[in-house]
Amino acid sequence: MIVLGIDPGMAIMGYGVIESSNNAMKVLDYGIVTTPSGMNTPQRLLKIFNSVDDLIQQYSPDAMAYEELFFNKNVKTALIIGHARGAAVLAGARKNIDLYEYTPLQVKQAVVGYGRADKHQVQNMVKLLLNLREIPKPDDAADALAVAVCHIHSSQNGRKLGSR
Amino acid sequence: MIVLGIDPGMAIMGYGVIESSNNAMKVLDYGIVTTPSGMNTPQRLLKIFNSVDDLIQQYSPDAMAYEELFFNKNVKTALIIGHARGAAVLAGARKNIDLYEYTPLQVKQAVVGYGRADKHQVQNMVKLLLNLREIPKPDDAADALAVAVCHIHSSQNGRKLGSR
Repeated sequence: MIVLGIDPGMAIMGYGVIESSNNAMKVLDYGIVTTPSGMNTPQRLLKIFNSVDDLIQQYSPDAMAYEELFFNKNVKTALIIGHARGAAVLAGARKNIDLYEYTPLQVKQAVVGYGRADKHQVQNMVKLLLNLREIPKPDDAADALAVAVCHIHSSQNGRKLGSR
Repeated sequence: MIVLGIDPGMAIMGYGVIESSNNAMKVLDYGIVTTPSGMNTPQRLLKIFNSVDDLIQQYSPDAMAYEELFFNKNVKTALIIGHARGAAVLAGARKNIDLYEYTPLQVKQAVVGYGRADKHQVQNMVKLLLNLREIPKPDDAADALAVAVCHIHSSQNGRKLGSR
């Protein structure tokens, strides 16, 4: 099974592609897509959408896992991030891929086994579980790998994106 | 010039298509796209995206005008509406159409000439300006026609969507 993990964002979107078979996980790719703030919104959404579409064409993921956004931020920020996440979700929906979403709490529980783990603990576990020599950089890429690992660890009871 | 006006929303998105030439405006189409709350988010976004894409193919608009969302609502609602608006914007961006956005205040000023006009005044002016026999229904469709009228009235100084 190939899983594409996405950490959505307008300025920086992280992605991570993991292949899992026989309880072994192998990283196929990870990185970030950036859109500069000087770019207008339609062009930024288009770059996010096209980048996710390219990743889907390249790796043919069986499932995609999106980090669910959790907010203490303001309404204006939520609206902007909603646009960006919508573009990333739409790219998966158009290819009829099974889409899942996980809260930061679920990711920490699945990756570290402890919902209050800090960012560094999560990143270290991602490195260990995926046999990487270093912690993946930047944070957004590590977060995207973490949500993909979370899906693989909990794929029996993952929550379909946007379902109730 | 053909303008496609969009009043974005997840459950109900309004649209209105107006042709303007020699200071005359003619309605080509208006209506709503609904997505039931039982549908999951990816499918809802896909329906919104495909519907806008269909309208673009059918009418080849020279410009699209989106109502800018103005909020006193909560962060969770903003995030959801952001997804929906992102899908509608992306459909225009993919076709390389000039996209504009207007605040409710700008729409009222452009349509009624008075920023504190109420909904009924706006709808009556839309009916008058567009030579319609009745006020267009539902409200979301009337709002979409209003934002298209706003763009036609202010197209010399319209604000490109997402620009600073």
